Amino acid sequence: MKIGHERLGAFVREAMSRAGSRPEDAEKVARVLVAADLNGVDSHGVARLRRYVEGIRDGTIAADATPTTVTDFPAGAVVDAGNGLGQPAMLHAVHLAVEKARATAVATVTVRRSNHFGIAGHYAALAAREGMLALVTTNASPQVAPTHGAEPMFGTNPLAIALPTHPTRPYLYDAATSAVPRGKLERLEREGRPMLPGWAVDPDGRTETDIPRLVKGLKAREGYALLPLGGAGEDHGGHKGYGLGLLADLLCGPLAGASWGRHVYGPDGAGLGHFVFCVRVDAFMDLDAFRAETARMFEELRSARKAEGQDRIYIPGEKEYETADARRADGIPLRPSVVSDLADIAETLGLPFPGHRP
Amino acid sequence: MKIGHERLGAFVREAMSRAGSRPEDAEKVARVLVAADLNGVDSHGVARLRRYVEGIRDGTIAADATPTTVTDFPAGAVVDAGNGLGQPAMLHAVHLAVEKARATAVATVTVRRSNHFGIAGHYAALAAREGMLALVTTNASPQVAPTHGAEPMFGTNPLAIALPTHPTRPYLYDAATSAVPRGKLERLEREGRPMLPGWAVDPDGRTETDIPRLVKGLKAREGYALLPLGGAGEDHGGHKGYGLGLLADLLCGPLAGASWGRHVYGPDGAGLGHFVFCVRVDAFMDLDAFRAETARMFEELRSARKAEGQDRIYIPGEKEYETADARRADGIPLRPSVVSDLADIAETLGLPFPGHRP
Repeated sequence: MKIGHERLGAFVREAMSRAGSRPEDAEKVARVLVAADLNGVDSHGVARLRRYVEGIRDGTIAADATPTTVTDFPAGAVVDAGNGLGQPAMLHAVHLAVEKARATAVATVTVRRSNHFGIAGHYAALAAREGMLALVTTNASPQVAPTHGAEPMFGTNPLAIALPTHPTRPYLYDAATSAVPRGKLERLEREGRPMLPGWAVDPDGRTETDIPRLVKGLKAREGYALLPLGGAGEDHGGHKGYGLGLLADLLCGPLAGASWGRHVYGPDGAGLGHFVFCVRVDAFMDLDAFRAETARMFEELRSARKAEGQDRIYIPGEKEYETADARRADGIPLRPSVVSDLADIAETLGLPFPGHRP
Repeated sequence: MKIGHERLGAFVREAMSRAGSRPEDAEKVARVLVAADLNGVDSHGVARLRRYVEGIRDGTIAADATPTTVTDFPAGAVVDAGNGLGQPAMLHAVHLAVEKARATAVATVTVRRSNHFGIAGHYAALAAREGMLALVTTNASPQVAPTHGAEPMFGTNPLAIALPTHPTRPYLYDAATSAVPRGKLERLEREGRPMLPGWAVDPDGRTETDIPRLVKGLKAREGYALLPLGGAGEDHGGHKGYGLGLLADLLCGPLAGASWGRHVYGPDGAGLGHFVFCVRVDAFMDLDAFRAETARMFEELRSARKAEGQDRIYIPGEKEYETADARRADGIPLRPSVVSDLADIAETLGLPFPGHRP
């Protein structure tokens, strides 16, 4: 089915409130989840709502937590999310970083004791719309093997980086540091398409290409692991993806004072950490001049000679903006399993469901 | 031949001075080049000396340039290298960033109108030894095609990131954002080993695996191009490597007010830009606690189950430190073409050459 993004947002808001979230937190979760669905990052949209609702209901996510600034100085802060929802914590951190960077030009904020915060790119883009260069990262449940390793030792830890190349549509890089995220495997499986060698390994570290076996093994923590960006070994730069994934874990774990590696989502809760760093671009370069120059750069890239069979070169973020335009106009397509999930949530919480069970 | 690193450094210093550099600049170039050779990054060591010497002698690099801070505020600065050597400019920028981050906790410095600065990791490690998390990047001569493109539109733009996980041997990530750097192709060719599909494309964007043809095509700017980390297309995350390479170009080009993309090394000089960002770790986390925690993290990674045929998992930086230990003890191996180069330089400048022509 397809659903308008505003109706979908209202449903998420209502569901989170009924589950026990404060209305202002429910609103933030709705905004970030629907932004993912609008952008085409379906794995991080309302497909995640069940986990949030269940987390709030069973107390593994603290409904009454308030993000608290525990260390504060002009160019930075440390935020304790109190095991509450990731979205309010990260929005608090990003607003703090933007506010600080307005004054000091450069700021960094870390977050500890947090939960899943949705898509990293949402936060980076938000800061970029305020004239900031922003880098956002988070750690995540362990699914990725280090180079030469054969078991998951850290998460798909995304790096999101945005630059204010345009007032509302910034340069937006948002990607897992693994070769592929797990959501892509699940999508390929639904579409009956194969996965490729070099994306994941079995418990002996041999390439794994059976999606159901892999997804089951990842979920059950049976030693199956995704590979870093660049794939197995060092031939195609797998050690680079490993270094970037580990970097994210270092920033969000030991630096932020949060959990890390295999300890994330342990018996004491998610314990996730986040990291945001902002630079006010106009402290270094006139913003209009920066935009004019980056527009020239992007135009040259678009005009470059294309590889055989290709007719377009994208600038990071463009695909997401175009998908969002289309989905804002035509509605957000939800696949049957997600519709089912939402209908279950509606039933459990005694809410009207804005659609038909497939 | 093998040569002691101190003797090699003295030779570089002497050669640069004779070529026309100020002694203090010659000393900085020597330090950074020999650091690359010690770490095993031979492509960025004294193999580059000829280009520096020639640049100074023919005036394409300004011997009398002094890096000048043109914009200055508590948490950042913009440095104009005046078309001088990259090493003194970047050392100036990094010292400035470290100094500022000591006071403000977070600082960013950009550099414009610069030249090749050697290995990015040297600067990041230097800041990390002062207790900083540091990110260093530079743009470079155009050699990499964007995803779906078939011609070089930006450089192999390295990202170097260091964290003070150890007082002298920080976590050190230093890698080109391309699948492989050009230096690796040249090494494989010397060793008679093949290159792999997915590293580079011919002018039609088809995978290229003939090293001599590729290297010649890259040098002559005939449309051959390296591929971003992740390879061709998006299947293995090539769009991620592309996004990271472009990011470096955005930071070092439009943000720094330097040249970018295909315009780097144009008729008006290299026009390179650099970028450094420092965060004082102990503003966020007690440094000893941070080190203890990262030591535990690295120990867990090392102990992870190994892939078949592998017996060791490395932490980024370890290989370089171990190579440096060995080379400090046994001398730096120089391949015949480099020895030849150095002998030529010695002859041209009327210097004694510390070795035998092969």
